[in-house]
Amino acid sequence: MGNKIYIVGMGPGKEEMMTAEAVNALENADVIIGYTVYLDLLGRRFQGKELISTSMRQEEERCRLCFAQARKGKKTALVCSGDAGVYGMASLMYEIGKGYPDIELAVIPGVTAANSGAAVLGAPLNHDFCVISLSDLLTPWEIIEKRLLAAAEGDFAIALYNPSSHKRKDYLERACGILLRVIEPGRACGYVENIGREGTKAAVCTLEELKSARVNMFTTVFIGNSGSEIRNGKLITKRGYRVEGDIAVCGDN
Amino acid sequence: MGNKIYIVGMGPGKEEMMTAEAVNALENADVIIGYTVYLDLLGRRFQGKELISTSMRQEEERCRLCFAQARKGKKTALVCSGDAGVYGMASLMYEIGKGYPDIELAVIPGVTAANSGAAVLGAPLNHDFCVISLSDLLTPWEIIEKRLLAAAEGDFAIALYNPSSHKRKDYLERACGILLRVIEPGRACGYVENIGREGTKAAVCTLEELKSARVNMFTTVFIGNSGSEIRNGKLITKRGYRVEGDIAVCGDN
Repeated sequence: MGNKIYIVGMGPGKEEMMTAEAVNALENADVIIGYTVYLDLLGRRFQGKELISTSMRQEEERCRLCFAQARKGKKTALVCSGDAGVYGMASLMYEIGKGYPDIELAVIPGVTAANSGAAVLGAPLNHDFCVISLSDLLTPWEIIEKRLLAAAEGDFAIALYNPSSHKRKDYLERACGILLRVIEPGRACGYVENIGREGTKAAVCTLEELKSARVNMFTTVFIGNSGSEIRNGKLITKRGYRVEGDIAVCGDN
Repeated sequence: MGNKIYIVGMGPGKEEMMTAEAVNALENADVIIGYTVYLDLLGRRFQGKELISTSMRQEEERCRLCFAQARKGKKTALVCSGDAGVYGMASLMYEIGKGYPDIELAVIPGVTAANSGAAVLGAPLNHDFCVISLSDLLTPWEIIEKRLLAAAEGDFAIALYNPSSHKRKDYLERACGILLRVIEPGRACGYVENIGREGTKAAVCTLEELKSARVNMFTTVFIGNSGSEIRNGKLITKRGYRVEGDIAVCGDN
């Protein structure tokens, strides 16, 4: 009774990129549940805990495990990479949580790949932006296509998640083809692989070149807006359209 | 020579919501530069450092101060709230940095209000989403309007930054009016004030109700997509359109 499950965003991978709040939630847990790869990334620090990993496609099972552990009275944490509320498990936990009204949920935010990848590339999302996943496992391709067009027509900077997988090798090329209906081929773009993990690789290119970029499921892709530039290997999106002396929007609250 | 400036995202406010990487960058700095309010939020931990604050609209001056300090050989950190690459100073630092080719820039990502606010509300951004600022200081209102319409037409979940200020009291109402051309009045929405700071307040409502919501410059506003729901005071955006057993998109890489 009165149990609470922490749904923890661990950031891109290395522990230094977790918030203290996230680290504390994991340290205070009796049991940490997550996808195998994420538990491995957590490293030795939490090896004293009971760790339960499930494989890639067993999200519902993973959630139910959390509630079962919490019902046993264990302090339970579910770990997600990046932010648990960005293509992560937060939503599914609330969904399944309908059956467990005695258990409270708390989401601990983390740094999502849009922001951690942007930091590697410079400042590609420094104005209004969209985040779109190219995975059509849970979303019909027609909706993805509609969103790509809307993002291009709105002149948003764009971060693309899940640009490729074993079964979807050509999805980034298809997405670029759709964007190229609206956006010029020379548009400044970039991508980052293994953000905050070993073997981080970043590259900048044009939208035309992005079509044939080698990406995988650990790559996040960035498409600039009409004012973005590549400079010294960095992808920079200007923070405004007018630059009148000192007048500027400040911060992100 | 060879100096490096760290552009640090401090997250929403309290220190527990900073990453260790961000804390380390500030601890290793000789001088920390930032907007007065953010330096105050950092609290006592960094009071031994040289702290230089500038007021709200002096972004260019703040950047130039950083480069001047780094040229003196001081380890310099510029602090921004949230993530430095989301309506923050990263882009302007790269811009002004053209005049300082000897000085390297490194962006340390932080948790932006879209994600920290989402965590308070539940899971409002758990599918494709847009981030739009309603401030027209640096962006003509016509572009903001175009983006609001594109976001609505693309059925994105939306996070709105800077929904109000002293001079722009009716901007959220105007934005809702634009969204209501495309989106039904009953659409699930929410907003959070003072995320990660004292006096955090959250509310959920319909898009029609959002028009007259009391918001200020410390509020982040969330508009759900067509599948979003309000449940037990939480705003939940489903992670997909199809739910077929176990097939699911996993994580945010």
